[in-house]
Formats: sequence, structure tokens, C-alpha cells
Amino acid sequence: MNFTEWTRSVLARTETALEARLPPADLEPSRLHDAMRYTTLGGGKRVRPLLVHAAGLLTGATPEALDAAGAAIEMIHVYSLVHDDMPAMDDDSMRRGKPTVHVQYDEATALLVGDALQSQAFIALSAAPVPPVRQAALLRELALASGSLGMAGGQAIDLASVGIALDRPSLEKMHRMKTGALLRAAVRMGALCGEEAPDSLEASVATASGAAASGTRAGAEGGTAVAEVIEAQALAVALERYSAAIGLAFQVVDDILDVTADSATLGKTAGKDEKAGKPTYVSLMGLSEARRLATELQAEAHAALAPFGERAVRLAQLADLIVERAN
Amino acid sequence: MNFTEWTRSVLARTETALEARLPPADLEPSRLHDAMRYTTLGGGKRVRPLLVHAAGLLTGATPEALDAAGAAIEMIHVYSLVHDDMPAMDDDSMRRGKPTVHVQYDEATALLVGDALQSQAFIALSAAPVPPVRQAALLRELALASGSLGMAGGQAIDLASVGIALDRPSLEKMHRMKTGALLRAAVRMGALCGEEAPDSLEASVATASGAAASGTRAGAEGGTAVAEVIEAQALAVALERYSAAIGLAFQVVDDILDVTADSATLGKTAGKDEKAGKPTYVSLMGLSEARRLATELQAEAHAALAPFGERAVRLAQLADLIVERAN
Repeated sequence: MNFTEWTRSVLARTETALEARLPPADLEPSRLHDAMRYTTLGGGKRVRPLLVHAAGLLTGATPEALDAAGAAIEMIHVYSLVHDDMPAMDDDSMRRGKPTVHVQYDEATALLVGDALQSQAFIALSAAPVPPVRQAALLRELALASGSLGMAGGQAIDLASVGIALDRPSLEKMHRMKTGALLRAAVRMGALCGEEAPDSLEASVATASGAAASGTRAGAEGGTAVAEVIEAQALAVALERYSAAIGLAFQVVDDILDVTADSATLGKTAGKDEKAGKPTYVSLMGLSEARRLATELQAEAHAALAPFGERAVRLAQLADLIVERAN
Repeated sequence: MNFTEWTRSVLARTETALEARLPPADLEPSRLHDAMRYTTLGGGKRVRPLLVHAAGLLTGATPEALDAAGAAIEMIHVYSLVHDDMPAMDDDSMRRGKPTVHVQYDEATALLVGDALQSQAFIALSAAPVPPVRQAALLRELALASGSLGMAGGQAIDLASVGIALDRPSLEKMHRMKTGALLRAAVRMGALCGEEAPDSLEASVATASGAAASGTRAGAEGGTAVAEVIEAQALAVALERYSAAIGLAFQVVDDILDVTADSATLGKTAGKDEKAGKPTYVSLMGLSEARRLATELQAEAHAALAPFGERAVRLAQLADLIVERAN
């Protein structure tokens, strides 16, 4: 299967997975359910589910587990778009080529659609066909990435920074939270779905550091355990490096497209960051430097995947897709 | 310890538990964290955490597990209040005796505070000191109660029913979702925290029905297993009956207080349902009939608890508190 065929198959699976995990539109409250489906189904690049499925290949995850994790994380992403587009935030009327939820329905419905989609994400994840210890780890991963130290917090910093000349470290911190946290979670959750992953990538790093600190004692007591821990640590570190690179690349390319693409291609209002006086990589470093940075980050993502060989080919191709996309 | 001492101790534990599970106000994004703490700490009746702790006594749950579950469910409740009070919804300026979040801060912050508190609830729950299988069950329970078939869905029906003469079954359905689902989840989650509870109250009911259907075969194969299943089923059924009674009673009393209490006592705007043309139990059946219904539901809640004897005394007293409260 080539990359195009693979993405097509994951997109089809994701659509089916989302469809099955959203309440039917004729079930009461039907206006709410209709709006949840309107905004979630039939659109979007599905970058996060693609990352989930690609990362799952590293640890032998089943497609069914990855469907659940991919659907959950996409629901979180979609809820954030619905709320971001509301008048109190970015006040945007077009998203994924369609009127935004508060335009198509009304503001109260948009508020509730976002709220209910966040709950629905955790409902979907809590039914993932993985052992309970993995379910709990997945749920924690998604909640942490969504909250005030992740996506929602990044959005708060973004709002507070309109018209302020953020320097590059501050801009990076904001994006690491606003979009990076969820992209990172997609990669880690995909890996966590597989039986070859440690039960918790977080714990494995802590344990590995502990084992290293206690030196030969741990080695003498259980060589295999330490080997496993070190392997888990290597996985966590490599995923971290890959996630950081693609997370930043994603934002740099978004900023480039905001000034180079038209609204029809983007499916959302082009040039709006510039108009809103929001700091972007293009405003900070210029278009050609931003392009060079994106290419550097692409190479960095590839380098991070080197230890995994062939199993990481889809993750590598997704890094290319993120940098070379047109919308 | 008498009931007043017990509630005081649970309220103190809950405040500490919430305090410890909210990011510090000086951590970036500090305006968001400050607002999350402003709206969550130092107020509220904490009915849901009280129910969590009372239900935990039925199954030998540790106070530490109940703290996590109580804090999580209270965060969900608080997030719903923040969003409900926004201009797009009820447009209220006073809550728990203080200016609402969008008044004290701004609308975008109120939106993000609600979003981040929902995530924070799942973060808190995912760190509950219970086995992973219980964590997963608790997370599922809370997500289902919060979503479009629970709290958020009830809110959608409520919004759609302004100015419409709902009949009593429709009104009950709306309240069963809007407030009942989370009160029910509080009771079930408290019980799920204890080691004497089955891993999933849901599954136990299904299994018990299955065992009953297959008749003597199951009995012959494993008497103990069936006895356990039937015990679990009895627990689930009794909690269901209790939850239904207090959930409805809570709403009936809310409707009574909306017309009989003043804003200062309520800590929120009195008479607003009447003013908004929202259907209430008082508008539907009159004040004295509504009072009689509340008393009936109180007796029903007590009856549901009969099988548990002394262990259910706090749940019984909470039913009294819910019906006899002044705000």
C-alpha cells in the first residue's frame, strides 16, 4: 500500500469511527446531535487520527483501538474549533468550507456542541478495546493535552497576545500548548494503544531515570526489566522529539498558508491572523526564513524516527504531508 | 460524628481536594488559572461531593479516592454553571453570591474556563487512587453523565423549551438529564470507588440479568459468582432508585426556591425561571403540590436505602438536606 492509499484508508476508517461514536441525529436533543454531526463529519484533514494510526504501527496496536483513540482526539480538536470560532473568541463564519456552528445553528448550540463533543471524546476513549490500564493512561493523556496546560491554555495565551509583539520563545510556548499538545498526544496515544508499548510512557521515563541513577544495583537485580525500561524510554524520547518537530512545523506552515493561500483552498478565512495583528512566524522572521524553518523541522522529524526503521515510514510521510500541504 | 460535623468535614476535604487539583494562579496562563480558581473555590453547596462521600460508605471506599471523584464531579458541575451563565445561554451576572466569570473576567475567559475545567475534571479523576479498571469505569461514568445524553443534552432541551408549555413527562426528562445525570453519577461514582463494589455497576446489571435468564445452569456452575452478581445488581438497582428520587427532588425544590427565596439567600438571581417563561414544577402543579411531591420523593429516597441499614445513614440525611435546604 502506498502512502496515498494508506491515508485514504485511515480517513475512511476515521469517518466510520466518528460516525459510529456520535449519537444519531434523530435522537433527542436532536438539534444538538445534528450540530455535533454537522461539524464533525465529512471534513477536516484528520491530521490527528492519521498520527494516531501511524504511531500505532510502532507498537503493534490494533486498528480498532486506534479508531477509538483517533475518533476521540479528533472530537477534542473539532470541539476546540467550534469554540474558537465563536464571537467571543475569533468570531469566524467559515470553517472546513462550511458556515461555522454558531452561524449555521446559534451561539448557545455552538457552546453546547463544543461541551458535548469534549465529553463524547472521553466516552469514545473509555470504550477503546484495550486493557483498563491502557484506557486509564489514554484518558489521562488526552485530558492533560486538552486542558489549561495544553490546548485550552494555549488558546488563552493566544487571545491575550493579540496586538502584543511576542518574541519567538513566547510564540513557540503558545503554539506548543495550543496545537502542539494535541499533536503530541495523538502520537503518544497511538503508541500507547499497542501491546508492545509500556503501560505508561510517562512512568517509563521516570523509572528509566531512576534505574540509571541507581546504576549497577538495578542492572544486577533484573537485566531484562532494565532493558525493557530503557527501550520504553527510547520510545518516549524519540516520540517526544518527533512530536516537537511536527508540532512546530504544523504551526509554521499554518502561518505561511495564512498569507499565501486563499480562503477557498484553506476552507477557512485566509489572512485573518495578519488582520487580527496576531504574531506569526511569517511576521516574526519573514516568509523565506519561515519556509526554511519548516524544511529544517521536517528533517528533524525524520531524524527522530531513525531508530524505528521501516515501522516509522508512515510517521515520516506524515511529517512530509504536514510540511508540504496546501491547506 | 453527627451529620453537621460530617458535612463540615467533607466540605473541608472537598475544598482542599479542589485546591490541590487546580493549577496555581501564578502559573501561566495565569488569568485562566486565576478564573478557574475564582469560580471553583470557596463557594457552592458541594452537593455532588457530599453524595460521592456518602455513597462511598456503602462499599468501603477510601476518603482519598472519594476526594478525587468528588473534586472531578464538582469541576464538571462548576464548568456547566460558568457556561450556563454566559450571555449566549442564561446571561446571568451573579452566581454563588459573586459576579459570574464572564462579568468578572470576560466572555472568552469564561468559555475557556468552562472548557479547561471539563478537562481538569478528567485529569483529576485519572489520578484517583483506585485500580485502573476502576479509573476507567469512573471516567466513563462521568463522561456519559456530562455529555449530550446527560447534562449538556438536558441543557439543550432546556434552552429549546423556553416559552413552550412542556408537559410533566417532558419536563422530567429534561431535568433527569440536566441535573439528574450528574447527581446519579455522584452516587454511582462514590460506590464505584470502594473495593466492595463490582468493577462496573453497568456490567453487573447486564450480567445479573443474563444469569437470571439462564436460570439454574448458572446457579449450578457457580453459586458464589451468582450471589455476588445478584448483590451487585441489588446495589445498582437501589442506587438507581435513590438517585432518581433525589434528582427529581433537587429540581422540584430548586423550582420552589426560585419563587420563595430571595437572591441573597440563593446566591443567584431569584425568580429568573418564572421571568424567562421556563416551565417549572411550581408553574405546572402549583406551590403546595410541588411541596407535597418533594416530601414524597424524600420518603422514596429513604425507602430505596432500606437494604443498606446504618451504612446508608449519610445518603438518607443528604436526601433530607436536599429537600429541606433553604438555598
